[in-house]
Amino acid sequence: MFDTFAAALDWFGIVVFTTTGALVASRKQMDVVGFILLGTATGIGGGTIRDVLLGALPVFWVGEPSYLVTCVLVSVATFLLAHIPQSRYALLLWCDAIGMALFAVTGAEKALLAGAAPVVAVAMGVVTATFGGMIRDILGGESPVILRREIYATAALAGAALFVTLSVSGIAREIGLASGFCLAAAIRGAALRWNWSLPRYRSRPGRVMDDRGD
Amino acid sequence: MFDTFAAALDWFGIVVFTTTGALVASRKQMDVVGFILLGTATGIGGGTIRDVLLGALPVFWVGEPSYLVTCVLVSVATFLLAHIPQSRYALLLWCDAIGMALFAVTGAEKALLAGAAPVVAVAMGVVTATFGGMIRDILGGESPVILRREIYATAALAGAALFVTLSVSGIAREIGLASGFCLAAAIRGAALRWNWSLPRYRSRPGRVMDDRGD
Amino acid sequence: MFDTFAAALDWFGIVVFTTTGALVASRKQMDVVGFILLGTATGIGGGTIRDVLLGALPVFWVGEPSYLVTCVLVSVATFLLAHIPQSRYALLLWCDAIGMALFAVTGAEKALLAGAAPVVAVAMGVVTATFGGMIRDILGGESPVILRREIYATAALAGAALFVTLSVSGIAREIGLASGFCLAAAIRGAALRWNWSLPRYRSRPGRVMDDRGD
Repeated sequence: MFDTFAAALDWFGIVVFTTTGALVASRKQMDVVGFILLGTATGIGGGTIRDVLLGALPVFWVGEPSYLVTCVLVSVATFLLAHIPQSRYALLLWCDAIGMALFAVTGAEKALLAGAAPVVAVAMGVVTATFGGMIRDILGGESPVILRREIYATAALAGAALFVTLSVSGIAREIGLASGFCLAAAIRGAALRWNWSLPRYRSRPGRVMDDRGD
Repeated sequence: MFDTFAAALDWFGIVVFTTTGALVASRKQMDVVGFILLGTATGIGGGTIRDVLLGALPVFWVGEPSYLVTCVLVSVATFLLAHIPQSRYALLLWCDAIGMALFAVTGAEKALLAGAAPVVAVAMGVVTATFGGMIRDILGGESPVILRREIYATAALAGAALFVTLSVSGIAREIGLASGFCLAAAIRGAALRWNWSLPRYRSRPGRVMDDRGD
Repeated sequence: MFDTFAAALDWFGIVVFTTTGALVASRKQMDVVGFILLGTATGIGGGTIRDVLLGALPVFWVGEPSYLVTCVLVSVATFLLAHIPQSRYALLLWCDAIGMALFAVTGAEKALLAGAAPVVAVAMGVVTATFGGMIRDILGGESPVILRREIYATAALAGAALFVTLSVSGIAREIGLASGFCLAAAIRGAALRWNWSLPRYRSRPGRVMDDRGD
C-alpha cells in the first residue's frame, strides 16, 4: 500500500515539475511545442540523469510510456490554463519546492536500492531534485536557480541526507521518506517565506583585483 | 540493399548536421578546433543522447571510428570553404531541415528496434532530430532553435509519428521511412518558405503582472 | 607502483579541476552550495561524460564515494581560502592547464582499456579533459573556454594523440602517459605565456552579408 503511495508521490513530483517547466515557457511566450519540450525536460530530466549515472538503463520513462504522456498532457494543459494563477512566479516557486522535496527523497531511495553508498545516494537525491530545474533554466536562458543565492540545493541535500541516515539506521521506509520530504520542503518553504539565503563569497579587502574580477 | 540506402541516409544526415554546427562556428568566427567541436557535437549529439537514454552503450560512434573521422573532415572542410555559399544563414536552415527529417525517422526506428514502445520511439525520433541542434545552440550561445517560435520540433514529431504508425501497422519499412522523412521535411520546408509558426502563449488581459513578467 | 602514481595523478587532476570550478563560483560571488556544485561538476564532469559514452556504468564516482567527498572538501576550502591568491584569474588558468593535461592522457587510457579504437580513445581524452570545464562555463554563464580562440582543446588533442600513438606502438605506459601529459601541458602553457591562438575563421571580402552575420 505504501508502494502505491510512493508511486503517487513520484507522479505528483513529475506533474509539478512539468508545470514549473511549462510556466517558464509561458514567461518566454513560447508556442505549445516549447511548453512540451521545457515541461517534459523539467519533469523527467533529473530522474533521467540519475538513471544514466547509476547505469539503470534504459532510463525509467522508456519502459513506461505513461510518464511521457503525462508530461505532454500537463504541458498542454499549462499552455491553455496558465492564465488562471494571477501571480505565476510565486506559484512557480512553490510548485518547485514541493517537487524538489519529493524528488530528493525518491531519488536517494532509488540510488540506495541500486546499491549506491550512502554519500552517493545523497548526491543522487540532489541530482534528481535539482537537475530537472537546471536543464529548464539552461534551456530557458535563465541563470540556474540552484546557483543563485537562494536556499535550494541545500534543502534537497538536507532532506536526502535525513532520509539516507534514517534508512541506513533501519528506520521504517515510510517514516524516512516522509521525514526527508518534510525537512526539504520546510527548509525551502521557510527560505521562500523569509528570504533566507546562505552567505555568499566576498573578496577580501586589499586584494589586487584582476581584470576579470567584478 | 535498402539497408545500404538507409546507412547512406544516416551518413548524409550526419554530414549535413555537422555542417550546420560548423556554420554556427563560422558565424562566431571561431578557430578550426571550434569548428570541429561544434560540428561534431551537432553531427552526432542527437544520436548520442538517444543511445544513452536507450542504454545502447557504448554509443554508436565508439565502435565505428569513421563517424568521428567524417565529422572532423566535414568540419575542417567547412572551415576552409564556408565562404562559398553567399547566404550562409539560409543554407544553414535548409541543411538543418534535411538532417532533422532524416534523424527523426532513423532515430525512431532505432528505438523501435531496441524494443521501445511506440510513443517512446516517437520521442526518441524527436530527440535524435533536435538535440544535436540544441547542443549546438547552447554551446554557440544562441537561443535553442527548437524553443523559438518556428515550426521545428513539430515537423520532427510529425515525421517520427507517421513512421512509427506505419511501422506498427506492418507497412514496409522503406515506405514508412520515406513517408516520415518526406512529411517532416515538407512541414519544415513549408514553415521556412512561408514563415509558418504556431501560436505562442499570450498572457490574458487584466492579469496582475509579477515582477518577473515581461 | 606506477598504478599508485597514476591514481595520484588522477586525484590531483580532480582536485585542481574542482578548484577551477570553485574559483568561477568565487568570481560570481556564489554561496558555498554554488561552490560545491560548480566545483564538483567541473572536477568529475569530464570523466562522467566519458564513462557514460563508453558505457562504463555506473560512472566512476558512484562506486568510490571518496571522489565526491574530495570534491566537496576542496570546494569548501576554496570558499574559505580563495582570497589568498592575489590574482585568481591567472591561477585559474594554470590550474586548468595542469588538470586538462592530466585528464587528456588518463581519459584516453581508460578508453583504450575499455576497448575503444585509437581515434575514439583520443576523442575520449579530449572529452575527459575539456567537458568538465565546458560544464563549468555553461553553468557559470560564461562562453565555453574551449570555443574561445585560445589553444585549449588543441593541447588536449595533441597530448591524447601522442599518448595513444605511443601506447599502440607498444611503448611503456609510464613513458606514454608522461610524454602525453608533458606535451599537452607544454602547449597549453606556452599558449598562456605567449598568447598563442589558432587563426580564426574570417569571412571573405565581397561576400553578401545576411541579416544574421556579424
